[in-house]
Amino acid sequence: MSERTKTADIDLGPLPELMGYVLRRAQLVVFQDFFAAFAPFDISPAQFSVLTVIERNPGLTQSQVAAALGIKRTNFVGLLNELEKRTLAERRQVSGDKRSYALYLTAEGTALMRKLRPVLKAHEARMVAKVGEDGRDQLVALLHDIADGRAAGEPRNGADVRGPKASRAPRPGSAET
Amino acid sequence: MSERTKTADIDLGPLPELMGYVLRRAQLVVFQDFFAAFAPFDISPAQFSVLTVIERNPGLTQSQVAAALGIKRTNFVGLLNELEKRTLAERRQVSGDKRSYALYLTAEGTALMRKLRPVLKAHEARMVAKVGEDGRDQLVALLHDIADGRAAGEPRNGADVRGPKASRAPRPGSAET
Repeated sequence: MSERTKTADIDLGPLPELMGYVLRRAQLVVFQDFFAAFAPFDISPAQFSVLTVIERNPGLTQSQVAAALGIKRTNFVGLLNELEKRTLAERRQVSGDKRSYALYLTAEGTALMRKLRPVLKAHEARMVAKVGEDGRDQLVALLHDIADGRAAGEPRNGADVRGPKASRAPRPGSAET
Repeated sequence: MSERTKTADIDLGPLPELMGYVLRRAQLVVFQDFFAAFAPFDISPAQFSVLTVIERNPGLTQSQVAAALGIKRTNFVGLLNELEKRTLAERRQVSGDKRSYALYLTAEGTALMRKLRPVLKAHEARMVAKVGEDGRDQLVALLHDIADGRAAGEPRNGADVRGPKASRAPRPGSAET
């Protein structure tokens, strides 16, 4: 094979059909778009997830938010320190428990989240455009089957199209978005 | 909201329907299984991808392998150094070009790849079991639509089930598996 071999000629073997490989490539493409869109606000996907959960559930503890998003404790502390330094979120001591902190958005954090709403919407619309609305619904349902687990012996029918609502709530797990 | 709030009660807002969020969670679940399965061989998904491409295309240059897998040059050099240190792969100087190296598996690398085949097969079977064969085919096709890009105005039909062969070859991109 010559030095000029084009990428298209390269044999990737089983990789393009391995779920992990294609999941990772697709995830990186989506995250790249997210990073580009959110760059003016300097917000990463992980930071956005954390801000979203704090905004929706003010007063949760660090462990609760970390568990809900499947983020490891150590990574979560770093994430939160950064958000606190930027005065987007804050820790408040839980009364009667010196080691426990409840999390809240600051006014600045709330204002930022409001500004981010159309940015998120536009990002998601670009992603949905790649597969269509039905494709998105299929994809989200399939991804939840993988992320949340599914009972064995409950095979998916090929033509089965479920709405995203069918398996909306992810379980606590391993995701570090 | 009390300190005892369960993860299931936490409002994740739009996250569970965002493609990036569910992609990331699913990808991490699949990678966790991969890491556990390949731990006895100390092989990561990225290392496995690199070994696969070198095995299938002996003599490619570093840039070619990196481009085919969408791995950044700097990350790729580190990956390859590690594989070379473990005598699984080797760089050989391309004659007439002192700065260019062609990549090959060593006998040890080839033997390892043979041993990994059933490990990969079992890992993939566990992943397919989560969505069924048809679900896997749908999923792989949708993920390629996202990773490889798709022409606008070519919406996916909800009941459209394409085999994985339909869009098998990923384009060079951003994946760092």
